[in-house]
Amino acid sequence: MNETQNPGNPDFSPVFWLDGSLRLLDQTLLPDEEVWLICREPEQVAEAIRRLAVRGAPAIGVAAAYGMVLGLQTAGGSAPDGRMREVADMLGSTRPTAVNLRWAIELSFEAYEAIPPGRDKVQGLLEWAEDLRREDIATNRRIGQHAIPLFFEGDRVLTHCNAGALATAGYGTAVGVIQAAWEHGRVEKVWVDETRPLLQGARLTSWELARLGIPHHLVIDSAVGILMSRGKVDRVVVGADRIAANGDVANKVGTYVVATLAARHGVPFYVAAPLSTVDPRTPDGSAIPIEERASEEVTSFTGHRVAPEGTEAINFAFDVTPSELIRCMPQLELRQR
Amino acid sequence: MNETQNPGNPDFSPVFWLDGSLRLLDQTLLPDEEVWLICREPEQVAEAIRRLAVRGAPAIGVAAAYGMVLGLQTAGGSAPDGRMREVADMLGSTRPTAVNLRWAIELSFEAYEAIPPGRDKVQGLLEWAEDLRREDIATNRRIGQHAIPLFFEGDRVLTHCNAGALATAGYGTAVGVIQAAWEHGRVEKVWVDETRPLLQGARLTSWELARLGIPHHLVIDSAVGILMSRGKVDRVVVGADRIAANGDVANKVGTYVVATLAARHGVPFYVAAPLSTVDPRTPDGSAIPIEERASEEVTSFTGHRVAPEGTEAINFAFDVTPSELIRCMPQLELRQR
Repeated sequence: MNETQNPGNPDFSPVFWLDGSLRLLDQTLLPDEEVWLICREPEQVAEAIRRLAVRGAPAIGVAAAYGMVLGLQTAGGSAPDGRMREVADMLGSTRPTAVNLRWAIELSFEAYEAIPPGRDKVQGLLEWAEDLRREDIATNRRIGQHAIPLFFEGDRVLTHCNAGALATAGYGTAVGVIQAAWEHGRVEKVWVDETRPLLQGARLTSWELARLGIPHHLVIDSAVGILMSRGKVDRVVVGADRIAANGDVANKVGTYVVATLAARHGVPFYVAAPLSTVDPRTPDGSAIPIEERASEEVTSFTGHRVAPEGTEAINFAFDVTPSELIRCMPQLELRQR
Repeated sequence: MNETQNPGNPDFSPVFWLDGSLRLLDQTLLPDEEVWLICREPEQVAEAIRRLAVRGAPAIGVAAAYGMVLGLQTAGGSAPDGRMREVADMLGSTRPTAVNLRWAIELSFEAYEAIPPGRDKVQGLLEWAEDLRREDIATNRRIGQHAIPLFFEGDRVLTHCNAGALATAGYGTAVGVIQAAWEHGRVEKVWVDETRPLLQGARLTSWELARLGIPHHLVIDSAVGILMSRGKVDRVVVGADRIAANGDVANKVGTYVVATLAARHGVPFYVAAPLSTVDPRTPDGSAIPIEERASEEVTSFTGHRVAPEGTEAINFAFDVTPSELIRCMPQLELRQR
């Protein structure tokens, strides 16, 4: 195990390149088991994204970048055009909502074109993917630093789903913000929404916060009402899967619910995301495709059926929070005026 | 099995008296198993209420009434004063939020006093409890009939938790309303909130609706936002555990969340409850005690831990919906003017 594989290390990363293959921490097995997947073919990356072994918009963007490298590598680095398009289509069709996936895939073609003649193509594309990964981590650290002035001593912060190191190449967006504010003594505790149906909050955010030593309590998603009405939440920070041109935000289902309650109770609601999550080609939230996942994710719980046999569930994976419910950071507010 | 024990029968009841004992359908085992508890002592009733084998405000009120009968019966029907107070305290302390429990216990003392001299005391109190049970079912049927004009053909109705036959002596409050409207051709389908942490919606409401033949889909509690923003909910009906004098309603945690989203989207939000749920001595929602239950109900499911070891959850069982978010029935609106 190296530094990046150690979740207790500040440089922990769930997605990185080692010895000619992509390593992914299988997040479906957390917190019970820490199993690393070794992907040598792009099909394995696509499957990992599809079954949520790697999830979180920035993380699947970076994983897809390496998937493109694997596509080129398995084609021997030659006659790559058809193969790259095939791999791009396969990776791009795994999940529809997060735009970082499409963004990384499109960038990979530009990066491929820009490789100087005579350079090894696989090596050239790999260096681009490595840059993309490093830039994601650096961006997240900068988001964290930017956000510190938004917090005040004693803040009790609520977050939904997981937008931590696990959801990115490292450090995290929303959890990165919480970590930065906590390191500056401005966070008293974190309310962790469990985030049904797949419990990314209970399984992943709790796991990360425990490793970071940040005090936290788990709550069911429905607790947001009583927590806010009792004045127990000072601030909300979440990540994003796609931000439309008008500022509407698609994120894990339930985010809009939290934002609505926050607005009613005057609790500032922030979205922490890199520019790669902004999609200028999507005019507003109504144009964002919302993934519907299998009924069984809801009707079964940890392998045990919880609804009567024959019960069908509708399972939207995301919802859209209109921009009016989201508090802008002061810098952005200034820029918009 | 008699008629009342058959969930497919319109006279199904989860709580009734038979052969000198109280029968309770153990709702913690549904939908997997239908196990009937036979309570011969009030301590068994208290334990069944505490561990939610019987739950739902009207059902625990009726169960407590029979618990008082068992208290008198086990005291041999004589020198009952001390014993009845002891049983009352034991039953009354099982759950703090639902007021029907306290209401039934207080009524039992009045009923005991009103038994004519020379009458068998146990038989006298039992007849009162049987009346209370019959009245609960009759009230629920009347609530259902009253509510029919509130529905229109094609309505897609959302309900939270379980306020069906299982939550009452029979027929149900919110589910009773849905059933009545459906029988009049006014309900197209029901959205069933799964209702974490104990999944009364997934386990119990789905079970009841399937038996009634009413079309329904299960959703996670957090789906309420996207369902409403996509215009997929025409009406919300829920039950209540306590209604304060000013109309604020304590009900299963998450109810206030649904009400807030309904208000934002202009979706009528109704509460279906008998008068026994109204507590004139509680001035408003802030005076309603909100039960906090064990952390393990959130961190574990069916014996499987879902959060990292050491994770603590805060587990409020109820929240309070302010009266301003609740739509009055026309009759009540008229009466209030």
